[in-house]
Amino acid sequence: MQNFIALLETKWEEGKFLCVGLDPDLDKMPLSNEGPGKRITGFNKTIIDATHDTVCAFKPNTAFYEALGVEGWRALEETCAYIKASAPDVPIILDAKRGDIGNTNAAYAKMAFDVCKADAVTVHPYQGGEALAPFFERKEKGVLWLVRTSNPGAGEFQDLKADGEEFYKTVARAAVAWNMHGNSGVVVGTTFPKELVEVRALIGDIPILMPGTGAQGGDLPASVKAGLNSRKRGIIISVSRAILYASRDADFADAARKKAQELSGEISAAL
Amino acid sequence: MQNFIALLETKWEEGKFLCVGLDPDLDKMPLSNEGPGKRITGFNKTIIDATHDTVCAFKPNTAFYEALGVEGWRALEETCAYIKASAPDVPIILDAKRGDIGNTNAAYAKMAFDVCKADAVTVHPYQGGEALAPFFERKEKGVLWLVRTSNPGAGEFQDLKADGEEFYKTVARAAVAWNMHGNSGVVVGTTFPKELVEVRALIGDIPILMPGTGAQGGDLPASVKAGLNSRKRGIIISVSRAILYASRDADFADAARKKAQELSGEISAAL
Repeated sequence: MQNFIALLETKWEEGKFLCVGLDPDLDKMPLSNEGPGKRITGFNKTIIDATHDTVCAFKPNTAFYEALGVEGWRALEETCAYIKASAPDVPIILDAKRGDIGNTNAAYAKMAFDVCKADAVTVHPYQGGEALAPFFERKEKGVLWLVRTSNPGAGEFQDLKADGEEFYKTVARAAVAWNMHGNSGVVVGTTFPKELVEVRALIGDIPILMPGTGAQGGDLPASVKAGLNSRKRGIIISVSRAILYASRDADFADAARKKAQELSGEISAAL
Repeated sequence: MQNFIALLETKWEEGKFLCVGLDPDLDKMPLSNEGPGKRITGFNKTIIDATHDTVCAFKPNTAFYEALGVEGWRALEETCAYIKASAPDVPIILDAKRGDIGNTNAAYAKMAFDVCKADAVTVHPYQGGEALAPFFERKEKGVLWLVRTSNPGAGEFQDLKADGEEFYKTVARAAVAWNMHGNSGVVVGTTFPKELVEVRALIGDIPILMPGTGAQGGDLPASVKAGLNSRKRGIIISVSRAILYASRDADFADAARKKAQELSGEISAAL
């Protein structure tokens, strides 16, 4: 099995930095007579087929599946299985934002890496690196620490200063300090380009997952420049709604592909 | 529908402060020929029947269900439905430790409160109160902020001092500042009795969920005294493994009930 970082490096080598966030919203999908779970799986498969050759990763966010209960959970597993079958070279980042004590994180790691077969997972730092061990001990898997999130109120705690340094920077340092297996990454929103520069300066060449572009209004060119590592790689620009729901009509797959290509072009131009 | 706080107050009035954590572990359950999902649902129903009249809440932790995929998720929904049908006076705290941007938390709130029909949910504070609005805007539901977690490495970030105050205290203050609907609570482990005293002093009378007793070695009598509010209530003492797996034989339900009664006695003695 190829590890997460190796899969990413291959995609970066191909010049691909875009990640499609698979966040199903039944109210924005083309209408259909199928049940919710089947609609989501079908929609995702079409999006995956239409965009897999333009991306460095797919990123399903668990929330949008769990909101539908058992049926949604089945759609999540089927979506991940479909990526592994049809585009095995594209890593799956499970955007689950999990975090608990060690004993419990072992169960979450099983969910992310064994049930969903994800190549990486996003995690909450609050309980510290000790608690996150069951994730990062899976050496072939990526563990992406929330550092600077994309939401408007992110600064409430993340900007608090301890010993003169903002909390999000301390978390960024921790993601590196706990990176004994070389599988750490961080999450920083494109809505905060200044913070991106500062985080990149702290973390060396490890990957940055960057949500916030599109519906959330993040600054794409500034973020690309700010996030690149010393090897002109290291960024995963995640876009969800702007690609998935580029059209609500029968042409949604073409519209999603065009939007993905357009965003990839903007990323290349900024490089 | 009765709200979370009202349900809790009734249980406290009855002198009940214990919460059974429903954290299924197939390796510790009585053997059976059934599939994993059915085994878990059956085990949970037996535990619920054996303990519901001794507790102030049940607390399923999502991790242990998700680790089994669709089948586990179904067991989680069936467990919650069984509590609502057989012990509707006992609130369900879904220990999901969720936290994302607002748009996404709306989906998590749907999962916790509509799919699982939980009365309260545990949340990660890192993204700030703005992001948590979709949870606490459900006024009849409880929102329990992780403040001081029970794990050994909890202090890595939670003890960092900003403006002379530890981060977990700042989070405790925020749980109160964002409590415009009267449905906030906090989570503090019984493994940290000193911190419990300090948190209680900051938060007034709002509920404290206290995990860490039993397998994790938390100090029960000290924590009970430290956590009580001005009305000699306000605590939810959660115990999982020590009750669920008190016996692995056919007498597991009796053993769980005895352990729950024994712990309730220890809590009463400490009051």
